[in-house]
Amino acid sequence: MNRVYNFSAGPSCLPLEALEKAQKELISYGSSGMSVMEMSHRSSDFQNIIDNCEALLRKLLNIGDNYKVLFLQGGASTQFAMVPLNLYKNKKTDYVLTGVWSKKAAKEAGRYGDVNVVASSEDKTFSYIPELSADMFSKDADYVHITHNNTIYGTRYTTLPDVGNVPLVADMSSSILSQEIDVNKFGIIYAGAQKNMAPAGLTVAIVREDLIGNALDITPTMLNYQTHADNGSMFNTPPTFAIYMCSLVCEWLDKLGGIKEIQKVNEYKAGLLYDFLDSSSMFKGTVEKKDRSLMNVPFVTDSDELNAKFIKEAKENGLVNLKGHRSVGGMRASIYNAMPVDGVKKLVEFMKKFETENK
Amino acid sequence: MNRVYNFSAGPSCLPLEALEKAQKELISYGSSGMSVMEMSHRSSDFQNIIDNCEALLRKLLNIGDNYKVLFLQGGASTQFAMVPLNLYKNKKTDYVLTGVWSKKAAKEAGRYGDVNVVASSEDKTFSYIPELSADMFSKDADYVHITHNNTIYGTRYTTLPDVGNVPLVADMSSSILSQEIDVNKFGIIYAGAQKNMAPAGLTVAIVREDLIGNALDITPTMLNYQTHADNGSMFNTPPTFAIYMCSLVCEWLDKLGGIKEIQKVNEYKAGLLYDFLDSSSMFKGTVEKKDRSLMNVPFVTDSDELNAKFIKEAKENGLVNLKGHRSVGGMRASIYNAMPVDGVKKLVEFMKKFETENK
Ligand SMILES: Cc1ncc(COP(=O)(O)O)c(C=O)c1O
Ligand SMILES: Cc1ncc(COP(=O)(O)O)c(C=O)c1O
Ligand SMILES: [Mg+2]
Ligand SMILES: [Mg+2]
Ligand SMILES: [Mg+2]
Ligand SMILES: [Mg+2]
Repeated sequence: MNRVYNFSAGPSCLPLEALEKAQKELISYGSSGMSVMEMSHRSSDFQNIIDNCEALLRKLLNIGDNYKVLFLQGGASTQFAMVPLNLYKNKKTDYVLTGVWSKKAAKEAGRYGDVNVVASSEDKTFSYIPELSADMFSKDADYVHITHNNTIYGTRYTTLPDVGNVPLVADMSSSILSQEIDVNKFGIIYAGAQKNMAPAGLTVAIVREDLIGNALDITPTMLNYQTHADNGSMFNTPPTFAIYMCSLVCEWLDKLGGIKEIQKVNEYKAGLLYDFLDSSSMFKGTVEKKDRSLMNVPFVTDSDELNAKFIKEAKENGLVNLKGHRSVGGMRASIYNAMPVDGVKKLVEFMKKFETENK
Repeated sequence: MNRVYNFSAGPSCLPLEALEKAQKELISYGSSGMSVMEMSHRSSDFQNIIDNCEALLRKLLNIGDNYKVLFLQGGASTQFAMVPLNLYKNKKTDYVLTGVWSKKAAKEAGRYGDVNVVASSEDKTFSYIPELSADMFSKDADYVHITHNNTIYGTRYTTLPDVGNVPLVADMSSSILSQEIDVNKFGIIYAGAQKNMAPAGLTVAIVREDLIGNALDITPTMLNYQTHADNGSMFNTPPTFAIYMCSLVCEWLDKLGGIKEIQKVNEYKAGLLYDFLDSSSMFKGTVEKKDRSLMNVPFVTDSDELNAKFIKEAKENGLVNLKGHRSVGGMRASIYNAMPVDGVKKLVEFMKKFETENK
């Protein structure tokens, strides 16, 4: 078994410890005599797994009792519809556009009501987070939507906008569990789990209770938060194995010291890479320094040929999935929680060597 | 590792061979250096997995080129909304009610149009499939919906209704891959994968192409079949690991000789159990003989105490999840493809012993 360092933007690397535990109990979990994949979701063994997963998420993120933690399917893309379908009253909402994902989210909301684009950084290929002041937001918006971390472009909000009493909804697909956040600042946080939590097929939504129960009439039952909130995420069969994997990832994080500690590690890892980018004359980061993501680090050389050569040789050295998204080009290193410090060190070493050999 | 015989109705047992293969490659798949759970859905490794899965399903079920095979999320319950949202034109449809699941499906369709209940077997706790003749169906219905196998009640359609030119839509969650079917008779076949195909978190829809592309305006993008049909089920991140497991299950089935062979095994297994039920003076099946399911076998004794004792002692003997659904009571043995013949033999032996000891 020859593990590589996997810099994929998602689905992405998982903690080896979690994978090893899953492997060990894959055929028979505890004394159950069956795989978690084979367990009835109504069994006490699975109830313990999902309860444990929720309890760990609540502990790690310090989630208050006035929030529901929902285990859903359909990816973050389904949330793009669920949010407006559940939150629209005036059918007016504010979106900040910081990348392809916020644009898609806004487009879907626009199919059901009026979307006001508060600000956009599309003018510079989404390489920064726009300045946002309280007066830019509509007082009568049903909610304000932001993409907390922009997976493709490598930016993140380092401060949250002041939206007054309007619920703030955040797509945290690529930043959840990576840094401390104050959940109380949000009406809804949602995340496709396949970056920092679990394998693909699980979507986690953290929803303030007062926002549940007023979905539009046209909302499909399965897209109504209330359906899942009223049934402990078991109105129908949930993605049981992905929830189990999420619990293993949360256990790993908890043992490590929780979000406070992983944030330090993440800042250290990102620092290694950004410091090198800033010192290098061959490689450079593509986003404004103040808005740099801790999770996704896009960078380029000034030649497409050199980029391609770099990606190819990195792969030969066990550093894989470094190709940037087509809308940015160049390279992107996604360094989620599960990417070991050693992986980033190896990447920086390799970049140094490559620079020496190719200048 | 002490494996039990798991008679759960879903999620349910998987072929040991598939689990063992998954276990072996859980940390590193092939030469990729990573788990399937960590793979980008855009990688060539994963593309091969999903292509292989689709090809195997097409081969096993003999699916024609005019059908799309879609790998979705949200469970069969999400299909209850997707079907009307995608197929409504006149907003008129026919539903046959043969259990809780068809009722739920009809209720959801009724939120968006007029549902005509063609027939129902609720008068006798859904213990039979109603007689259906061509003249019972509406000529101008957008589709006719049936639940092909009724997981809770243990009935199945042994012949398909004659619905003329109206598309027939079937929920095959608990019968897909268990017996030969002529896909050409159907407009749409859908199934939550967690019974006969894969772990929970994957929904497979087989959709005739002419039924794609006319969704109602209110349809969320993620609930539009076209979204997934146009993007090879990769509009967004699909449930990658569940798809991989589905491919392993299909490989196992293919090696075994395909659906023709597994149907023989299933008829043999069900025969063992039904024959015993018919000969026993303590146990009896709860459904009309002509409509007996091959997959789910509910049975009772005439005492709640005896039922409880049976379930408890069966469990102590490694025969688990035999408790019937609360709406039927008694016992239910789900004997999907992955339940070995030996499991059913052990169950029948145990029932015989129990009958002798308790009469
Ligand atoms: C920030 C963000 N939002 C949404 C999505 C879409 O998620 P999904 O594929 O789960 O629908 C992604 C996926 O990469 C993402 O990075
Ligand atoms: C026939 C049938 N239809 C639908 C469902 C609901 O499926 P899901 O939990 O995937 O929504 C089930 C689940 O048991 C079922 O047996
Ligand atoms: Mg983005
Ligand atoms: Mg530089
Ligand atoms: Mg049923
Ligand atoms: Mg009998």
